[in-house]
Amino acid sequence: KKFSANVAMAKSKFEYVRAFESQELCLPNCFVVVRVDGKNFHKFSDVHKYAKPNDARALRLMNKAALRVLVEFSPEIVLAYGQSDEYSFVFKRSTEIYCRRRDKLVTNVVSHFASSFGFHWKEAFGEDELKYPPTFDGRAVLYPTLTNLRDYLSWRQADCHINNLYNTAFWSLVLKKGLSPSEAEERLRGTVSSDKNELLFSEFGINYNNEPELFKKGTVIVRSMNVNVPVPLTDESAEESAFFLSKMPKLASNFQIRNCDLIGNPFWQAVESLVDV
Amino acid sequence: KKFSANVAMAKSKFEYVRAFESQELCLPNCFVVVRVDGKNFHKFSDVHKYAKPNDARALRLMNKAALRVLVEFSPEIVLAYGQSDEYSFVFKRSTEIYCRRRDKLVTNVVSHFASSFGFHWKEAFGEDELKYPPTFDGRAVLYPTLTNLRDYLSWRQADCHINNLYNTAFWSLVLKKGLSPSEAEERLRGTVSSDKNELLFSEFGINYNNEPELFKKGTVIVRSMNVNVPVPLTDESAEESAFFLSKMPKLASNFQIRNCDLIGNPFWQAVESLVDV
Amino acid sequence: KKFSANVAMAKSKFEYVRAFESQELCLPNCFVVVRVDGKNFHKFSDVHKYAKPNDARALRLMNKAALRVLVEFSPEIVLAYGQSDEYSFVFKRSTEIYCRRRDKLVTNVVSHFASSFGFHWKEAFGEDELKYPPTFDGRAVLYPTLTNLRDYLSWRQADCHINNLYNTAFWSLVLKKGLSPSEAEERLRGTVSSDKNELLFSEFGINYNNEPELFKKGTVIVRSMNVNVPVPLTDESAEESAFFLSKMPKLASNFQIRNCDLIGNPFWQAVESLVDV
Amino acid sequence: KKFSANVAMAKSKFEYVRAFESQELCLPNCFVVVRVDGKNFHKFSDVHKYAKPNDARALRLMNKAALRVLVEFSPEIVLAYGQSDEYSFVFKRSTEIYCRRRDKLVTNVVSHFASSFGFHWKEAFGEDELKYPPTFDGRAVLYPTLTNLRDYLSWRQADCHINNLYNTAFWSLVLKKGLSPSEAEERLRGTVSSDKNELLFSEFGINYNNEPELFKKGTVIVRSMNVNVPVPLTDESAEESAFFLSKMPKLASNFQIRNCDLIGNPFWQAVESLVDV
Repeated sequence: KKFSANVAMAKSKFEYVRAFESQELCLPNCFVVVRVDGKNFHKFSDVHKYAKPNDARALRLMNKAALRVLVEFSPEIVLAYGQSDEYSFVFKRSTEIYCRRRDKLVTNVVSHFASSFGFHWKEAFGEDELKYPPTFDGRAVLYPTLTNLRDYLSWRQADCHINNLYNTAFWSLVLKKGLSPSEAEERLRGTVSSDKNELLFSEFGINYNNEPELFKKGTVIVRSMNVNVPVPLTDESAEESAFFLSKMPKLASNFQIRNCDLIGNPFWQAVESLVDV
Repeated sequence: KKFSANVAMAKSKFEYVRAFESQELCLPNCFVVVRVDGKNFHKFSDVHKYAKPNDARALRLMNKAALRVLVEFSPEIVLAYGQSDEYSFVFKRSTEIYCRRRDKLVTNVVSHFASSFGFHWKEAFGEDELKYPPTFDGRAVLYPTLTNLRDYLSWRQADCHINNLYNTAFWSLVLKKGLSPSEAEERLRGTVSSDKNELLFSEFGINYNNEPELFKKGTVIVRSMNVNVPVPLTDESAEESAFFLSKMPKLASNFQIRNCDLIGNPFWQAVESLVDV
Repeated sequence: KKFSANVAMAKSKFEYVRAFESQELCLPNCFVVVRVDGKNFHKFSDVHKYAKPNDARALRLMNKAALRVLVEFSPEIVLAYGQSDEYSFVFKRSTEIYCRRRDKLVTNVVSHFASSFGFHWKEAFGEDELKYPPTFDGRAVLYPTLTNLRDYLSWRQADCHINNLYNTAFWSLVLKKGLSPSEAEERLRGTVSSDKNELLFSEFGINYNNEPELFKKGTVIVRSMNVNVPVPLTDESAEESAFFLSKMPKLASNFQIRNCDLIGNPFWQAVESLVDV
Repeated sequence: KKFSANVAMAKSKFEYVRAFESQELCLPNCFVVVRVDGKNFHKFSDVHKYAKPNDARALRLMNKAALRVLVEFSPEIVLAYGQSDEYSFVFKRSTEIYCRRRDKLVTNVVSHFASSFGFHWKEAFGEDELKYPPTFDGRAVLYPTLTNLRDYLSWRQADCHINNLYNTAFWSLVLKKGLSPSEAEERLRGTVSSDKNELLFSEFGINYNNEPELFKKGTVIVRSMNVNVPVPLTDESAEESAFFLSKMPKLASNFQIRNCDLIGNPFWQAVESLVDV
């Protein structure tokens, strides 16, 4: 019993170490973007036999994990954009969640994302088991204006397009022509976009423009309570939205999923009032 | 095709947004402690019917997730300590992992921990399913000296002891005496440690000192390649170590698991040379 | 000679300590405001027998030191505002000076300001000597939008007004009515602005609205190459500008000095295109 | 009168902008070193006709400004070291001044230093007037251990030595041999320390080891209340200390000024108990 009293006293003696913790707050009135990125997903996609150049199961799993994040931190996240093994979450500029503490924002998002990725694995991959727990890194970036935010998202979508065009060409050469990876790399060295389009068309009969929007554009999720986002639906994967609504009807109903262009103005004319709040 | 070329050009136009990303590096020659904490685990433990006041399955799951983190970031983490729904990971002061970038350190650890928690759920909880993906927050704290680090760990272990004593008394009153939670709270208001010891002994025949070390002390994991940590084993849960070794023999063999005192000197005399590197 | 070679080798051995230096960059596309504040200026103004409630010599010295800062960091600072013993310097949001390093921005401004304050002391105070070197603290604050910047400046100017009204009443009671400082304080406790206006008018015949704009509004300096800032000049201290132009003709010609309202729209309609760059 | 009330209300409306200010605290239990550096002192020393390669007046003025800083922030600064146009101030690791706020620490030191430099100019330079206000930048660096701190100071002193040896050779070639600056630079390219020693001795009869310690070692100031620092005095400039004591007897009596070696152990054996507090 003596011991217990000592421990209680001891605790207060040790508590000075709390002063070593620091707190960084995100500058007010900026959009806070938390981006999560798969760590070592080159290896992860090999081990789990991802289809090449794109694995629709994996992309949908990413989207589902993202949707969980949007729901968990609702209504603070107004928009999210994902492609490949990365996802960006845009908190509204006026958010006061966690008093805008940077560490809290980033770690809650990235751990919930990682946790959800594993949680929904079976729905996406069925019998193909998750072989080890994946890791994601995360960072928070501040954007002072809507223009800066749009340029950030445009940057990620342009990245998606460029990588996807390259990968489509690369894996066509490897899988359909039997080139080795280094031969395929050599073949593509120095080519510009139009060269790759040409190659896909002339050698594989692929019109890149007809590839799935999910692959070319990535996925954007917009929060919109009970109203339809009037985004041009021409290139939307309706199948994609249906998939979610069937699985998570209550969760997903306030979010609109699209595979549309973010670089031009039409999307923003439709959603600006939902995002810039 | 025109479009593709434009996108490539566009990307470079948007790339200026990278300058908005900031990088904080952890001060060199300090121990970096990453602590993860369950978010809303009061609710989580209710939904998943955790035994009260302690659920050994849950603690072992925490330990297993921690072990995965130690393995994943090996050999950079030299020690970890966990209790309740929190775990602290101590990176060696000389670590150069991720160039000591704070964000990278914290988010990789917390996401791998969360991911591992779900991954091993079934082994710990069997038929009791994981109902939703858990979230953990994380933070990195720097300690310039071994004394500061020891005081930090002592603080967490004293916290473990104080909470466990309180919870043991509280749940005895609720589960064995039929008090309502608020009655039990009222009954314990103003009591010091010796009062709670007395209450446990006189009313429930519980000698608190004989409670499992896993509950009273929490769990410490030390990295030690191929050598036994000469830590007093009197209060060690041998069962605990065996559990891990049977499940993850290759992973776990370089780590020693103990439920021992961290506040006094004996533990540190045994491990200082392993930790202060 | 042996020694010298050793020192050269030694230096490289010690150079690892550079890694302990950290660099924080100011978020791009935000206005960077550096505010300097006199340290212990209550005592400083007593020792140097500042006139009460306002010492025009001191205010002009502050303005002159500010002008030196504007010149030194030209063309990066687009606007400055000062009152009492503080001055705020607004760097244009696109500035790349010192790569936006926070430490460099703040310390260069504050040290040049302090240095200039002493340098021009004699011109302002004549035979009344500077008795000891003054100290100023400094901080950098980021504002993401012009609205936030305007609100910041409005906050400082409202502060100027409120303090000046209080001080004018306080010192009238002390100097003209012979009240002790604590009696004057007591007399003003709980009064609102209109009470103080009334008191000044009824007891001292002072119409507060006729007090010098320099005292009521503080001083704003705008950078404008070779063009006049079309700011309403009704309340401008022409004498003020003339003072500077006579002393620093080459330096001061690109800057316009006003003692005008910053809270309303007219000032901003005139200068927005000069400031938001 | 209406206006005043509005301003008072307005102020509270604008006060939200305070939330944009951030506060970084220095990690506890680390030495905080604030280093100030002359900005553009190449030009400053030309304009003010500094003697080459060293101007004893300028070095003493730096020392005096440093002494003012030590006095102003007494007893928080335990040691300072200066050479050329830079000075490093070591706050004791336990300091709580300004709650360890980084901005406050750096800006108060750098502005008081700059201010003091101008204030004492005349004492050092007599009839040679200060032509414009100098600027200094400043930074705070944290060192977790005494070894790191010693290595930092050794780095600065090794830098002093290397530069001074180079400059002594360079200016001998220019001033005594009539070489142009670029010829002198060319002559010294690729030489190591022993070459420069040899050159000084054979061409100018200068034994570098006999050069003043003030030039070769820089100046260290130690705070020591009422006791003599038992530092080997062999290479101390007694004249240096006397200069200060005559000018600032009350201020300077608690500080010991030396031009001694900081790299070896003897200095630290003498002062460690004064510094590591």
